[in-house]
Amino acid sequence: MNNFGLAIWSNNNFIIEDGQIRLNYKCMPSLLQIVEEIRSDDVRGPILLRFPHLIKSQIRTLYNYFDKAIQQNNYQGSFNAVFPLKVNQFPHAIAAITSQGAQFNYGLEAGSKAELILAMSKTPSGANITVNGFKDKEMITLGFIAAQSGHNITITIEGLGELETIIEVAKECKLKVPNIGIRVRLHSAGSGIWAKSGGMDAKFGLTSTEIIEAITLLREADLLDYLSMIHFHIGSQMSDIAPLKKALREAGNIYAELKKMGATKLNSINIGGGLAVEYDQHTHSNSRNYSIDEFSSSVVFLLGEIMNAKNVSHPDIFTESGRFIVASHAVLITPVLELFTQDFQEKLLNFKAVNPPLIEELIELNKLLNNTNCIEYLHDALDHLESILTLFDLGYIDLQDRSNAEILVHNIIKRALYLKSSNPTDELAQLQVKLQERYLINASIFQSLPDYWGLNQHFPVMPLHHLNTTPLRAASLWDITCDSDGEIGFNPDKPLYLHDVNLDEEDYFLGFFNVGAYQETLGMNHNLFTHPSEYTIIIGENDYEIKNAVESKSILDILDSLGYDAVELSKKLKNDLSNSSFITEKEKSDTLAKLELFLQQNGYLRTTN
Amino acid sequence: MNNFGLAIWSNNNFIIEDGQIRLNYKCMPSLLQIVEEIRSDDVRGPILLRFPHLIKSQIRTLYNYFDKAIQQNNYQGSFNAVFPLKVNQFPHAIAAITSQGAQFNYGLEAGSKAELILAMSKTPSGANITVNGFKDKEMITLGFIAAQSGHNITITIEGLGELETIIEVAKECKLKVPNIGIRVRLHSAGSGIWAKSGGMDAKFGLTSTEIIEAITLLREADLLDYLSMIHFHIGSQMSDIAPLKKALREAGNIYAELKKMGATKLNSINIGGGLAVEYDQHTHSNSRNYSIDEFSSSVVFLLGEIMNAKNVSHPDIFTESGRFIVASHAVLITPVLELFTQDFQEKLLNFKAVNPPLIEELIELNKLLNNTNCIEYLHDALDHLESILTLFDLGYIDLQDRSNAEILVHNIIKRALYLKSSNPTDELAQLQVKLQERYLINASIFQSLPDYWGLNQHFPVMPLHHLNTTPLRAASLWDITCDSDGEIGFNPDKPLYLHDVNLDEEDYFLGFFNVGAYQETLGMNHNLFTHPSEYTIIIGENDYEIKNAVESKSILDILDSLGYDAVELSKKLKNDLSNSSFITEKEKSDTLAKLELFLQQNGYLRTTN
Repeated sequence: MNNFGLAIWSNNNFIIEDGQIRLNYKCMPSLLQIVEEIRSDDVRGPILLRFPHLIKSQIRTLYNYFDKAIQQNNYQGSFNAVFPLKVNQFPHAIAAITSQGAQFNYGLEAGSKAELILAMSKTPSGANITVNGFKDKEMITLGFIAAQSGHNITITIEGLGELETIIEVAKECKLKVPNIGIRVRLHSAGSGIWAKSGGMDAKFGLTSTEIIEAITLLREADLLDYLSMIHFHIGSQMSDIAPLKKALREAGNIYAELKKMGATKLNSINIGGGLAVEYDQHTHSNSRNYSIDEFSSSVVFLLGEIMNAKNVSHPDIFTESGRFIVASHAVLITPVLELFTQDFQEKLLNFKAVNPPLIEELIELNKLLNNTNCIEYLHDALDHLESILTLFDLGYIDLQDRSNAEILVHNIIKRALYLKSSNPTDELAQLQVKLQERYLINASIFQSLPDYWGLNQHFPVMPLHHLNTTPLRAASLWDITCDSDGEIGFNPDKPLYLHDVNLDEEDYFLGFFNVGAYQETLGMNHNLFTHPSEYTIIIGENDYEIKNAVESKSILDILDSLGYDAVELSKKLKNDLSNSSFITEKEKSDTLAKLELFLQQNGYLRTTN
Repeated sequence: MNNFGLAIWSNNNFIIEDGQIRLNYKCMPSLLQIVEEIRSDDVRGPILLRFPHLIKSQIRTLYNYFDKAIQQNNYQGSFNAVFPLKVNQFPHAIAAITSQGAQFNYGLEAGSKAELILAMSKTPSGANITVNGFKDKEMITLGFIAAQSGHNITITIEGLGELETIIEVAKECKLKVPNIGIRVRLHSAGSGIWAKSGGMDAKFGLTSTEIIEAITLLREADLLDYLSMIHFHIGSQMSDIAPLKKALREAGNIYAELKKMGATKLNSINIGGGLAVEYDQHTHSNSRNYSIDEFSSSVVFLLGEIMNAKNVSHPDIFTESGRFIVASHAVLITPVLELFTQDFQEKLLNFKAVNPPLIEELIELNKLLNNTNCIEYLHDALDHLESILTLFDLGYIDLQDRSNAEILVHNIIKRALYLKSSNPTDELAQLQVKLQERYLINASIFQSLPDYWGLNQHFPVMPLHHLNTTPLRAASLWDITCDSDGEIGFNPDKPLYLHDVNLDEEDYFLGFFNVGAYQETLGMNHNLFTHPSEYTIIIGENDYEIKNAVESKSILDILDSLGYDAVELSKKLKNDLSNSSFITEKEKSDTLAKLELFLQQNGYLRTTN
């Protein structure tokens, strides 16, 4: 891995210069510089940085490629896109998306009532709102209210029941009727982890038989002229483009058939999301097999071809890619708190006058180890350690013997690895893993990288500095939760090497990239760790601006949000402390001040120094 | 699966009577009765019920079995237990735990600063507090403050750095010094999904060499008399008892060795958590291979034996089992909103005067299907469907042909399954899955069953009523998120069958059991769905009481908690609506009232009817 795979995952958004990672934009600030400025204001713990210009460049890329494909294919429909709110509903993310997207008329997609309310509040005037997911009568009524309020809204039905409810609401009130979409159930399955979004057993969509019934129902209710869209979605983070092409053929033909069946106002195909983001940091396993160019060309070409063949006018194209738009805009920065090396220094050996025979043998092996015998001696040493540990468990040797054995065997492993470093066996590579360095990061994986926990999703990670030095330490990353799942282990297939730093003398920061999609909204409060402090960074030609600071919740606020009475709780703690006997009054007032300070800090570590 | 595996997972806490599931305690209310009473107060959406008596019975079981083992083995140490807050920090769960546990002196464990503050506020006077996980100077100082405030607190160090900080804080202030524990790193690995908590590569703990260094440091700082505990934890939801026995032998010998090395005040072994909960609903794959009786006997016997052999007095025993204590106390109740059957009724067939040849063949196959030819004809039908779908994608046949083919093939599958129902092949069993019924539940799996998403953890599920009727529908459960992962698919190996109900005529409720551990605190706000409405149920001899109602957040509150200005947002929505043109003033005021109502409801479906 050269430069932590920057060339693979960063899409040229970042570059390395003078040993630091910098934004590759205008005044090109380094991430370290931004982080240090934020921390100079006594901010501690993990930090999430948002870069709105990266959202804009993704929106522009999406529109530009589709516009190009539309021109090249002489396609008659327009291109439209909406952002699915479920991917990130945080206020400063949405503010960046709507402001950066306004010139493109970029809209919002809602998948629940709360998201629909949010879309109604935040969609730029004239831009589209699409509504997916299961809907009850209230949510459908909200859709009518949105239409009445002037929004350009399309409600996509996921089943015939929802259509019946739309017809019912239209009868009961005289509000403006929203556009109606139909989610079609395709037999073409998707690809990628989320492939089950497509296929005949998918959670969503109508079968051909149900689509025909829907047309009949709409016609009978005199609402057929509101049917404007058919929709499909074959799954998030699509790794392969082939299933999309199959799905386009199927959906395109359904569209053409519906036009022929009299759906005269039908004018759009919504191809859902799925545009993948490159999360990989190692060349040998890329996340997707297509470019945005191939993606847009395929969609436009195939739809044009089907419509031409069936003599149907070209539909407008809608997409709902969210991950592609926002993943890159957010970077999580975590300080490293401590390096844990298992302490097996030879100076800690403490032999007895008479050592157990197996220890004596280990001493011999350690002494006589050389390039010729090292594999054989290594095997002997590992075997002896096994026996010694068993002897300890059975009470035959003492803790000092066990410690001596640990040190000797680790020394033998280290030396064997060194002697065979030019030609390591599989076994040695596995042992290398055991000697990895543990980097304790001031963050919670459950809160900030939930897809790592739930889906084993890798996120690009690299230090912000020291990048002119080759990192040599095989690294695993531990978070500060007291959960053994809160660990990104060293993976020999996708190794991470970090620097050997002295944390007493300097800070060492790691950046996790492409965390702008899903990670915030899925964040779990395990051990009561909450959303990191976040900042929006506006980069100009000569300088950058740090805006929209939202500091991580204080401990009292965390407990308050769980439903505890924070005032009462804080009072009790201070009372308990006050009522204890102190040696001096000063000690008492100092300690009370410390307690008060701790209650006002966020829950991460080292927040006061 | 008889009675939904009640005998396997319910530990006799529930029984089935008169077709309903009831609490097997005092006045034995049915869950349906409780739910209907709550809903009569216009509460809608998912409901979480807490049963404090189930917490008490688990605490009592734990203490009773250990007390029995202590007597039987003539063991000289005492038994102590604490509840790890990370398992559930919700106020009414903690209130139940501390009140039900008070008579046993049941304490609390903290794994982060916020949890330590919570433990200091809520631990019953005199009960133990233990502190695990990574700690900075602030958190260690908090531990001193807790000791000073009168708490019986033990801080367990995870590395030598933490011990150095304890020594530093002890020097800097004159506060009471807390008890000190050492987490030992065992070579014995754990079992179960979380096994990596144990083993030499584990996230936590000190090696033998580091333990010896720790003793030296403590002695030099004159703090050795505060060393009271050694601690280990081999992993949550332990499936096999063998690794625990190995770990006990190892830790027991470390304890004895430390006593001999001069740690005279060392008096406790903390064996961590790991007591498994039975989540399984099907006999053939139980979650654990031991009983609580075997567990407690093994711990007490082994520790006694080791100490006797080494002539060391018996240590007090601490456990930190959280899952075992609270999993059973909470039940999630979700209304079923809709049954999705793919609509392939024969009456929807709509043939043409001239049908494509493959459709004609399907008509023939459907007509001539019988017991002898059904497998062969089924194969032909599936093959034809494949071809017909391809013809559709290529534009050769129309939507009506495709619909006719879908209906005919599904009819053939259904009849073949019926004809071979006494002797189904593997292939037919797989097809059965395709005909499963989809039950849409008013809940979010991400919010309420996150371990299903992250760890594929099964939770026992069953309807609350109709239990005198055999359920016949192979069921998959869909949640209302617009995420294809929000689905508990039908699993032929662990099948779930539900009833065929007419939801226009009656409600149908499902209960998810054993959800009291981790699910609440890990709950994700995907699609902005929040914690369900919750209630504590106190069961008496003649009646039960519904207490501590906490309704699910309203949509405006959800958006407010994300950082949006709810007042401004609500004003904008009402303005937008007011400014549109209505046919009548009444329609306008009615619609504004509806909007206001929707904003005040929670985000789940059917909250107003």
